[in-house]
Amino acid sequence: MTAPPAPEMRAEGFAFAVQARDGRARAGLLQTPHGEVETPCFMPVGTKATVKAVLPRDLAELGARIVLANTYHLYFRPGVATVAAHGGLHRFMGWDGPILTDSGGYQVFSLADTRVVREDGVEFSSIYDGSRHVFTPDLAMAVQEALGADVVMCFDECAPGTATRDEVAAAVARTTRWAAACRTVQTRRDQLLIGIVQGGVDETLRRRSAAELISIGFDAYAIGGLSVGERGAEMLATVDLMDGLLPADRLRYFMGIGDPSGIVDVIGRGVDVFDCVLPTRMARTGTALTRRGRLNLRNARFGEDLAPLDETCDCVACRGFTRAYLRHLVMQKEILGAQLLSLHNLRLLVGLAADARAAIMAGRFTDFTNDVAERFSAGGRPE
Amino acid sequence: MTAPPAPEMRAEGFAFAVQARDGRARAGLLQTPHGEVETPCFMPVGTKATVKAVLPRDLAELGARIVLANTYHLYFRPGVATVAAHGGLHRFMGWDGPILTDSGGYQVFSLADTRVVREDGVEFSSIYDGSRHVFTPDLAMAVQEALGADVVMCFDECAPGTATRDEVAAAVARTTRWAAACRTVQTRRDQLLIGIVQGGVDETLRRRSAAELISIGFDAYAIGGLSVGERGAEMLATVDLMDGLLPADRLRYFMGIGDPSGIVDVIGRGVDVFDCVLPTRMARTGTALTRRGRLNLRNARFGEDLAPLDETCDCVACRGFTRAYLRHLVMQKEILGAQLLSLHNLRLLVGLAADARAAIMAGRFTDFTNDVAERFSAGGRPE
Repeated sequence: MTAPPAPEMRAEGFAFAVQARDGRARAGLLQTPHGEVETPCFMPVGTKATVKAVLPRDLAELGARIVLANTYHLYFRPGVATVAAHGGLHRFMGWDGPILTDSGGYQVFSLADTRVVREDGVEFSSIYDGSRHVFTPDLAMAVQEALGADVVMCFDECAPGTATRDEVAAAVARTTRWAAACRTVQTRRDQLLIGIVQGGVDETLRRRSAAELISIGFDAYAIGGLSVGERGAEMLATVDLMDGLLPADRLRYFMGIGDPSGIVDVIGRGVDVFDCVLPTRMARTGTALTRRGRLNLRNARFGEDLAPLDETCDCVACRGFTRAYLRHLVMQKEILGAQLLSLHNLRLLVGLAADARAAIMAGRFTDFTNDVAERFSAGGRPE
Repeated sequence: MTAPPAPEMRAEGFAFAVQARDGRARAGLLQTPHGEVETPCFMPVGTKATVKAVLPRDLAELGARIVLANTYHLYFRPGVATVAAHGGLHRFMGWDGPILTDSGGYQVFSLADTRVVREDGVEFSSIYDGSRHVFTPDLAMAVQEALGADVVMCFDECAPGTATRDEVAAAVARTTRWAAACRTVQTRRDQLLIGIVQGGVDETLRRRSAAELISIGFDAYAIGGLSVGERGAEMLATVDLMDGLLPADRLRYFMGIGDPSGIVDVIGRGVDVFDCVLPTRMARTGTALTRRGRLNLRNARFGEDLAPLDETCDCVACRGFTRAYLRHLVMQKEILGAQLLSLHNLRLLVGLAADARAAIMAGRFTDFTNDVAERFSAGGRPE
């Protein structure tokens, strides 16, 4: 299959092209001012400008190409001025590759229990010191422009899985209004702005949200509002729907999915990029993702197990250490345990996306999907 | 200066030669079955078979050549059988270079407040679960042989700085008796056994301890019983004394010194190898050792400081990150902060020892000493 011509982007220094398709799965290439990203791509999460317990050079070595950082957290600690004084996040966190920042919307809605949603934004209490703040589309964009990531996100409202249809509809309306505002106030031309589609698992609202965002026009689209407690079948049906609604030639980002089978499910439905804190969070509690399911290293059965975490893995942890040693580190709360398990879990997901890409390029994505479903059978959805 | 012939060692596969002298400072070369160690040499501490927060490959990259692990801790967690099942510590902890294990003596005496000292050993309660145990020279040797380090230590009694002269004298007598027992029960010929000189800061007891251990005959000698609260001048006077008592052609190991000026002080008094938990422990509380003194990164003045920790340092932390970023990591309790500060602090001390070696080889150790005393003036003794 020959690659179709890439659409022109508003953001300068960027391009995205779908290079191959296999069924609905896509292999693509995103070009950014800080380098190329082959898709499908798993994006490690560096919440506070650090992928927890992982040195940037090790992140590059394991194949990660783009990392995510959280506007909400960086706004409060260390504050925008400190990052800006470094010339932006790349220099601040020592990562030369592409960076994506979210808008803070997700945290404002999920972390604050004393929020007041207003037409122009959200008033809430900081989780750091309880002080009152207002996030608006203008502020979210100004902060993201100062943080200086390559890819930035519209300020949106992600309704929780428990929201009523009216609440989801209101969130869709606000998300559209705020997306338009973000587009309007954007001043940097060297940042790719992503529009986020909301609407929960309601088809009508999803269609509305997608149509309104496409009408504003973005270089890339995110599928937000999923992985918030809905059933797996509803989630997948919604991704199916989105595949038919989003422009075929634009990058698609699924926010927050990190279990191996779920990743393959969304790749198979046309998603290009995804992220999750799962691999690093699980690592810090002693759980390894493997191609044969999850291993909880606190389990005594690993005490004398001289095998690597995953025989098929080429990561630092699997090449040099046994399950027995890693269990020892976990049980003794040694930092090295979190380091090695983080490197392994990230390598597994980054490698899974790379394997999916290779399968798509070779036209054998269906076989790959079946193989993953079988091998990761003990995996399941994120905890 | 031509190197004198190296003395024959009892341990097979080992050799030590003093390659150059400058005043009383020595540059030497220790050969082991797992590689060479150039001295003077700072030995990072890997208490529970991990130098905390540092990957073995990064330890090698920063120039560390030999690491220490603690018999006491490994005896209880994960237990000797687990390490032995790996074929020993090298494979267990993923470190191909030389390893030294202590005997457990220091921990038995310093950690247990319910110990009973007997002629044949010490009965004490484990800090892990309170269970009662007896460590003897026989057990300490059997455990160290199973752990499989290159260099092992005699089971000794390190009297605290508050001990009376009678108590120190009793500790010296037991240390001699136990050293003889360790020599007798040793079965592995491929492990270098170090005799430990005790005697606090009492000249008569030091002379007695040294004479008795030399009479038993060891391949190398450790200066124990210092850095336990004595005054700096007493400590240095004791090292001066030891320099005249220990065989000039044998490796000398000062147990537990990690502040830069103290390290240079003991190198200048004929010490070849030393260790300390200081660099990694300080790293985990946010303190950096630098060539201009210590930096407590919790101090607000580093909040906007775009300089590296130490302009003259070539470590990963100094090459890639600012003080402001490292402070952010420390304040947010990010694991990466402990990782980067550990790499830096270890690199500083490993590099300091390497610089001392170069100065000795070039016959300019006095200048080096004066330079260090001036540069590290804000350093002081370990906290």
